[in-house]
Amino acid sequence: MADIDALRAKMKTIGDHVRTLKAQGASKEEVDAQVAKLQEAKKELAEATGEPLGEEKGKKGRMALKTPKGTRDWAPADMALREHIFSTLSRVFKRHGGSTIDTPVFELKEILAGKYGEDSKLIYDLQDQGGELCSLRYDLTVPFARFLAMNPTQYSNIKRYHIAKVYRRDQPVMTKGRMREFYQCDFDIAGHYDSMVPDAEILCIVCEALTELEIGDFTVKINHRKILDGIFAVCGVPAEKIRTISSAVDKLDKLPWGEVRKEMTEEKGLDPEVADRIGKYVMLKGGPELLDRLKKTELANNKMAKQGMDDMELLFTYLDVFGISEKMSFDLSLARGLDYYTGIIYEVVTQASAPPGFSTIPPVPSAEPQTNGTLPGPSAPSAKPPKKSKKDKDAEGEEEVDESTVGVGSIAAGGRYDELVGMFLTAASGASGSSKKAAGIPCVGISVGVERVFSILNQKAKHDEESRWGRSKETEVFIVAVAEGLLPERMKLAKELWDAGIKAEYMHKAKPKFRAQFDIIDKERVPFAVLLGPDELKNGIVKVKVQKGKDESKDDEGEIVKRDELVSWLKERL
Amino acid sequence: MADIDALRAKMKTIGDHVRTLKAQGASKEEVDAQVAKLQEAKKELAEATGEPLGEEKGKKGRMALKTPKGTRDWAPADMALREHIFSTLSRVFKRHGGSTIDTPVFELKEILAGKYGEDSKLIYDLQDQGGELCSLRYDLTVPFARFLAMNPTQYSNIKRYHIAKVYRRDQPVMTKGRMREFYQCDFDIAGHYDSMVPDAEILCIVCEALTELEIGDFTVKINHRKILDGIFAVCGVPAEKIRTISSAVDKLDKLPWGEVRKEMTEEKGLDPEVADRIGKYVMLKGGPELLDRLKKTELANNKMAKQGMDDMELLFTYLDVFGISEKMSFDLSLARGLDYYTGIIYEVVTQASAPPGFSTIPPVPSAEPQTNGTLPGPSAPSAKPPKKSKKDKDAEGEEEVDESTVGVGSIAAGGRYDELVGMFLTAASGASGSSKKAAGIPCVGISVGVERVFSILNQKAKHDEESRWGRSKETEVFIVAVAEGLLPERMKLAKELWDAGIKAEYMHKAKPKFRAQFDIIDKERVPFAVLLGPDELKNGIVKVKVQKGKDESKDDEGEIVKRDELVSWLKERL
Repeated sequence: MADIDALRAKMKTIGDHVRTLKAQGASKEEVDAQVAKLQEAKKELAEATGEPLGEEKGKKGRMALKTPKGTRDWAPADMALREHIFSTLSRVFKRHGGSTIDTPVFELKEILAGKYGEDSKLIYDLQDQGGELCSLRYDLTVPFARFLAMNPTQYSNIKRYHIAKVYRRDQPVMTKGRMREFYQCDFDIAGHYDSMVPDAEILCIVCEALTELEIGDFTVKINHRKILDGIFAVCGVPAEKIRTISSAVDKLDKLPWGEVRKEMTEEKGLDPEVADRIGKYVMLKGGPELLDRLKKTELANNKMAKQGMDDMELLFTYLDVFGISEKMSFDLSLARGLDYYTGIIYEVVTQASAPPGFSTIPPVPSAEPQTNGTLPGPSAPSAKPPKKSKKDKDAEGEEEVDESTVGVGSIAAGGRYDELVGMFLTAASGASGSSKKAAGIPCVGISVGVERVFSILNQKAKHDEESRWGRSKETEVFIVAVAEGLLPERMKLAKELWDAGIKAEYMHKAKPKFRAQFDIIDKERVPFAVLLGPDELKNGIVKVKVQKGKDESKDDEGEIVKRDELVSWLKERL
Repeated sequence: MADIDALRAKMKTIGDHVRTLKAQGASKEEVDAQVAKLQEAKKELAEATGEPLGEEKGKKGRMALKTPKGTRDWAPADMALREHIFSTLSRVFKRHGGSTIDTPVFELKEILAGKYGEDSKLIYDLQDQGGELCSLRYDLTVPFARFLAMNPTQYSNIKRYHIAKVYRRDQPVMTKGRMREFYQCDFDIAGHYDSMVPDAEILCIVCEALTELEIGDFTVKINHRKILDGIFAVCGVPAEKIRTISSAVDKLDKLPWGEVRKEMTEEKGLDPEVADRIGKYVMLKGGPELLDRLKKTELANNKMAKQGMDDMELLFTYLDVFGISEKMSFDLSLARGLDYYTGIIYEVVTQASAPPGFSTIPPVPSAEPQTNGTLPGPSAPSAKPPKKSKKDKDAEGEEEVDESTVGVGSIAAGGRYDELVGMFLTAASGASGSSKKAAGIPCVGISVGVERVFSILNQKAKHDEESRWGRSKETEVFIVAVAEGLLPERMKLAKELWDAGIKAEYMHKAKPKFRAQFDIIDKERVPFAVLLGPDELKNGIVKVKVQKGKDESKDDEGEIVKRDELVSWLKERL
């Protein structure tokens, strides 16, 4: 066993070393050398313990007591925080007239087909057991568009939110929060409305939501697809290269311009002069005043860019009315991955979710913040299916988390997509070409990265002993038998409290030990202990001890309360 | 087209006829003849329309715009009711010290294997795309037991609830609410406690929950596995026949004794004398006084039965303390399907969920209440995987819903299962025989049939125009432009209301028509309309119209409220 422990310690040391190297931006060679060492140690350990590597565990006649790869259980304390996040978001959404829908966890395979590009390989398929071919949903946007296309008259306009699990057969990196089953939280406004009015409300909603979640400072980066496309046009990007050049631009939040330029010219064959012209535009960021600057450039003569700039100008007017303009950063380098965006696009970046040194050094993938070991789900904002581009191997030999998905510090993202619903209507009407395009329903939406919100708030809660998320249940009163068990008496009192809506428990033993009962009270931090003894019963009273300094002036002996006044006494204090 | 319409009408006529025949208990031959006619008409229709039958639709280049078979979307108004049900249940569970967990939607295939008998064929498997073999969860009980087995120290005792979707590849009967994706709602108490204390609390919880859900009158049928097994022993049932005879007994709520006796003797080869002895016991039902009667029989000498009777006696004491004894019916015919029950078992029957004439005529399968077309999910209480036994064909040629699953009028069910967690621990420790049985964690639980609760409450809501479930959103205030659009002014006012926590909306148009705005208010039944016009703005006032007679004394012209007092004015009235 000593050998095994030593091997485990060795693996930990190498692993830490790798992480440090990567955080410092060490060369690939240096990192790879350490990773190779780690793999060797792993093999040694497998031989020493006689246990097969990784997933092979659980074979050999024993049942593997585990959840599938990339999934996890959620314990009660985690669930309490998760419910807090979901209910906060739902409250904000409802305040804005939002209503929620639900769709099945799996869809017909053909509904998802052709929506996610090369990431379609990450879709989970159900086995063909006869009948229809189905797949687990990959996001909530495509099912929403399918729902609208199925009910275009009834839901020609709707503000809908949906908080639900989605599935991606990706290489999980648990410590970084990339999971195969994770929650998404989408809010979208569908319908034909006047320009920028719903768009402004979406941005207002996300600001309110993140503020009420208390995740700390954040900035909303905004841009407009039509301005970007206008830039590419006036700079001379050939039409067929626009999407690929756009995705290179999108990396400017992680890579210096030189790298991005190199990708454009060397990898993607763009004329270097064109790249340089693009560079002058996409490095720009600021507020509404940036629009004035752009209007003095050749962009003013591009019809598409002009439309985009008019939209942005109007949007800023509305954001001013909402008093949230200061949160915005008009950032011409923001491009977003998905092809289906047609108007404004945005991404929210938080200080809390940014990697260490985010604002001073160009972050590398491994500089991702080390999140706690139980961090669930990817941090990827849901409206943006991952777009594979640049991968590393991390210390565990797993593929590095895809930064284009996660976004550095990105905690919410979205944009306007006016044509997705129409795509479904066209496909369902049997029209193969664009000749018979069905009229769609324009949409604009945002996706909040709830798994990342969870990890930020969970981190905060760990530093805060008194945080209510540390509690796995909400019990307000624990009924204690001082002597002789008094089980029926405890039950009777509990029933009175339950019927009054008070959360109460007692120990499920006929004759519990006094200390054992207070152990539960301490462990669960139950605020009130109601003590029952033969004397108290005889005199129609109870003794109440207020726990955890909620009422420090009371002495340790507890307060005498008349039995028939207990409910009102407690209600006053809860 | 005339032909097609005629064919459709013909199919409807035959379909109705079949349902009538079955409701009247017509012979199988009569029904089958009509079903054959129906099938023929279907084929004719397919030929006439050129559309393939059923699932074949959507081929031929067109995309099928639909959800997979046996699944459905949930529209906003349905979701509002569903959330009400879930939050009511959660509130009751939390009041009793419950906390919630979550587990993945899919489990390793081997975790589910061997838990559901012949119904394993209903499990959805994920396609083997490399890596582990996984299946969608079939219920919430097995994942819970797996969770406990993985964390036996940390969760040696827990009151947990779990409301989540489960999956069964069953033949869906949408109109009867049998779906392939549906919600289950389980509450279980795990841990070593004194006899009947957690069991009594579970029954207390289900009574509180059903009362607060306002589903109407209900009765809790209770029995004890050990009493049943004692009865079988003293009556002379061979050990290997106990489970199969037990499942015959379980049908006594749907079939007369004669039928059940026939099944025991003819199908299952039981000695008729033994069957008659059983008959004398299992027809008995009543209250605690039934225990006294039983104690005077030969059962008193059976050790197992004695244990069961002691349990029941103690349980009734506790139920008396909780004041819920009147809700109970000690019913010796209740056997429950699952093999893993080891102690008390129960099933809650409601008047609302019972088929018409339930109490007077022996119900036949087709006498199931006709629920509305959008009724979701099966009515099956979740802790009880279906046990196939007796099937019919219904008018659609689909298999009849399995009554042993649904239970006639059953709305919640459960029992004590002390050995399921131990089964996992034993399997995971690699012990193949029973020699190395791992010590488990005893559990007792209940499963509320939330889909059936939904259909009962949905039915009620339809009869109640004012029901809040008719509303798809909770918007409290709609801001109306009287003239000139005033979009920024409406936005500004909305933001003030949102910041005060008031649910407010305005039309997303620059210059909305007056009538169009009130159409929304009427359709969504928004209680307050706040009117903004140039005069109001100038004078620092707004006009508020109270909708839907909430404040009938106000005249139609609306009330003048000072703009800077609007928030407090509204808050007083909301």
